Amino acid sequence: MAAATAGSACVTIVGFVDSEPGRLFNAAAVCAGGRVRGVYRKRLLPNYSVFDEQRYFAAGTEPLMLWGVAGVDVGITVCEDAWVDDGPVARLGEGGADLVVNINASPFHIAKVLERERNLIRRAAESGCPQVYVNLVGGQDELVFDGASMIVDASGQVIHRLVSFAPELSVVDLEVQSRQPTTLPVVELSTQSAASAQPVLAPHSAPMLPETAEVYEALVLGTRDYVAKNGFTDVVVGLSGGVDSTLVAAVAVDALGPDHVHGVAMPSRYSSEHSLSDAAELATRLGIDFRTVPIEAGHAAMLNMLSESFGDAELGLTGENLQSRLRAVVLMALSNQFGWLVLTTSNKSESAVGYSTLYGDSAGGLAVIKDVPKLLVYRLCRHRNDVAAAAGAVPPIPGSVLDKPPSAELRPDQRDDQSLPAYEVLDPLLEAYVEGDTSIADLINDGHDPAVTGRIVALVDRAEYKRRQSPPGLRVTTKAFGKDRRLPITNAYRG
Amino acid sequence: MAAATAGSACVTIVGFVDSEPGRLFNAAAVCAGGRVRGVYRKRLLPNYSVFDEQRYFAAGTEPLMLWGVAGVDVGITVCEDAWVDDGPVARLGEGGADLVVNINASPFHIAKVLERERNLIRRAAESGCPQVYVNLVGGQDELVFDGASMIVDASGQVIHRLVSFAPELSVVDLEVQSRQPTTLPVVELSTQSAASAQPVLAPHSAPMLPETAEVYEALVLGTRDYVAKNGFTDVVVGLSGGVDSTLVAAVAVDALGPDHVHGVAMPSRYSSEHSLSDAAELATRLGIDFRTVPIEAGHAAMLNMLSESFGDAELGLTGENLQSRLRAVVLMALSNQFGWLVLTTSNKSESAVGYSTLYGDSAGGLAVIKDVPKLLVYRLCRHRNDVAAAAGAVPPIPGSVLDKPPSAELRPDQRDDQSLPAYEVLDPLLEAYVEGDTSIADLINDGHDPAVTGRIVALVDRAEYKRRQSPPGLRVTTKAFGKDRRLPITNAYRG
Repeated sequence: MAAATAGSACVTIVGFVDSEPGRLFNAAAVCAGGRVRGVYRKRLLPNYSVFDEQRYFAAGTEPLMLWGVAGVDVGITVCEDAWVDDGPVARLGEGGADLVVNINASPFHIAKVLERERNLIRRAAESGCPQVYVNLVGGQDELVFDGASMIVDASGQVIHRLVSFAPELSVVDLEVQSRQPTTLPVVELSTQSAASAQPVLAPHSAPMLPETAEVYEALVLGTRDYVAKNGFTDVVVGLSGGVDSTLVAAVAVDALGPDHVHGVAMPSRYSSEHSLSDAAELATRLGIDFRTVPIEAGHAAMLNMLSESFGDAELGLTGENLQSRLRAVVLMALSNQFGWLVLTTSNKSESAVGYSTLYGDSAGGLAVIKDVPKLLVYRLCRHRNDVAAAAGAVPPIPGSVLDKPPSAELRPDQRDDQSLPAYEVLDPLLEAYVEGDTSIADLINDGHDPAVTGRIVALVDRAEYKRRQSPPGLRVTTKAFGKDRRLPITNAYRG
Repeated sequence: MAAATAGSACVTIVGFVDSEPGRLFNAAAVCAGGRVRGVYRKRLLPNYSVFDEQRYFAAGTEPLMLWGVAGVDVGITVCEDAWVDDGPVARLGEGGADLVVNINASPFHIAKVLERERNLIRRAAESGCPQVYVNLVGGQDELVFDGASMIVDASGQVIHRLVSFAPELSVVDLEVQSRQPTTLPVVELSTQSAASAQPVLAPHSAPMLPETAEVYEALVLGTRDYVAKNGFTDVVVGLSGGVDSTLVAAVAVDALGPDHVHGVAMPSRYSSEHSLSDAAELATRLGIDFRTVPIEAGHAAMLNMLSESFGDAELGLTGENLQSRLRAVVLMALSNQFGWLVLTTSNKSESAVGYSTLYGDSAGGLAVIKDVPKLLVYRLCRHRNDVAAAAGAVPPIPGSVLDKPPSAELRPDQRDDQSLPAYEVLDPLLEAYVEGDTSIADLINDGHDPAVTGRIVALVDRAEYKRRQSPPGLRVTTKAFGKDRRLPITNAYRG
């Protein structure tokens, strides 16, 4: 990348891992005139949430400096450096920076763009100069980097936004006040303006996405990149006719195209007629491959195999889990034979309380909606239909999928609300306990029913062993199960 | 615990989480005369290997002090504080400490006791006083805390060892040189010697365990505590007649007693006669419950269910994985119905190269030998038989289990060495790559075959997705898969 700057007035800033014996640094290389002219080493290393940087990197401690580009003295920082008050950006401003560039691999969560914007406005105020915020785009396991790069001027106005969830090249002309003299050393990189030598793209600002739309786009990008970057082209989804598998199939089609998505209905003796017809209707509307593999023969054979051990005992949960696991065996066999990645359809509400079967419905390669609570699953489905309707297309999700009460259909007439409170009660409680780290006492003070709170907290705590073995899933909230929330399984603390 | 020191000359040091608004500290409370007399906050917070302390704790920065106990000025440190040269222990020595007590939650790995001993000898030399090292005993998810507390005198001699892998109370009389004056402040806790008021236990030193014995004991303690602390009494193990499930069953019996271990043979159409007879013979020798659940009926039913999708295609690996997954379905059904925890029997060599079936043989609640390479599995089996023979008992492990070539028996005449190099080649390569972080170039320089090295490294890299969903397993090496080795699944780097 440095070589590509030869013969051009362009200065390139590129993130890389810098090293010296025994130490690594999260760093930015400053490239001009065909070579690396200098390096900035990240000073603030996040070690919270999904970040483990203090495990791997040493903090940069070199004196700050500025980089002269066509008469503008540019300060450079990396990600976290711009997230603290009175930190490196303030020092660069004091030292005479005319402009600060901040390069990022900043993962998405709901409304993160607004958080970044608030931060940049504070940085502009304390440094007195424009802030150029550049962010990675793409999926990496559980994280989705959403791009949404932006420029905030010295007065704190957002003057340019790039798109979210897609790469974009943008050339922006900025009004920059040159502030002399500087007290920081300046490395002169270029005295010529690149703008005069190259055509300038007309600046245009991308709109900020509403919350539901941004989550949907995050799921699409995260799914597309997880599948492609891991060498897959096709995915398979078990279609139950329920809202979770429906959303996952719709996301998969938007991520990969209908030709690369395979739906499988696996009715059991307890499945309703409408489950199968809703699944088939969804597949038709999405235009995907669809097959039906009834699990009755395997179910009966396994019960017979186990009859000597079980005798006449009621099977209860054992029988329910058995069906769920046989479906996973079917999906994994299709995966093994045809090279399709299994998309898991468990949502965050289920995963939180352990309302899923280990090696059953929680099995698969990527858990697309693992961090999406049930009520948001519904909102995302409606959003997808609204998008279709607005474009004059047939809404992909059948209305009956959205209207019927949620059920696992693992015993006759089963409904989620026989085991769990209504999702209108459950989801806010889970958000407060899981994402908010709220104690039981505070949850009750905040108006949650004491008995429900005690029961749900106990379920969440007890289900840690299931979550430990769950597939990676796309993170869309401030705290996903996984690297965000590291709890022991063996744990006598409660609440 | 502080209250229990009332009316006694005893001073108690107990680890706890200290806090102030917005910050937590890993701390030791010093209790005497019925109350907490002071607190030492850990200064050095490990953030490598299995440790994440910088995520949760702030480092203690208060001035060091000493605690006067019956005329002896005692310095107190916590764990990592004693693992660095010229650190807190050296400062305590300079300040006049007559004795340093170091409290620990230090997890076991092979030969860790010797590492601790070397550290304490350096601490004694630089501080000029005896070192009392006290360590936790017990299992906590993947970690086994082995106890093995010890005292090193001022000359660097280990003068007392407590047992490994079991709690022990020991009262030891020490020759302590009082060094006056001290330059650190001293809090006088007690002027009376406790020794004069209470009978002194005769000091005795426990022997250090040889490597194979200490690993075996770690597996037994880790299994016992994981099972009991998570509310289980009984476990179930799939017995294939192979060496891995044999070792796991033997460990389980030593951890829980034969009445709490249930063995299940699940022969398929490809299982050999000797597999079933070896499993039955093992169960008889161990005195455990044993049942046979042939999987043929389920196997045939599933193949039939999938025949429309598969047509006449050769199933190959798909068919092998199917059998393995049906066995997991059987074990999980027994677990659900009877409340038995499933013990997983995958070893570290298999887990490293992905020679296992996701949701099949890698499924279960605790992977007892997940961090035990195959050759060590054999050594542990022989060790267990030697212990029995030395005690005049029948060796629990049939000789035929140890003598036959390893096979997954998922197709006719299958043997591990058709897919993998001999374990004598594989295990050292895996140790160098996984535990030693050795690059491909260095592996080849060190004499590993280039083609084998490239192939095995690629297998290890590619199997990350399987390991991500594997159950917790007991850590016995310096680097276990899990918290020790955090790699992305989506990863284009190789070797």
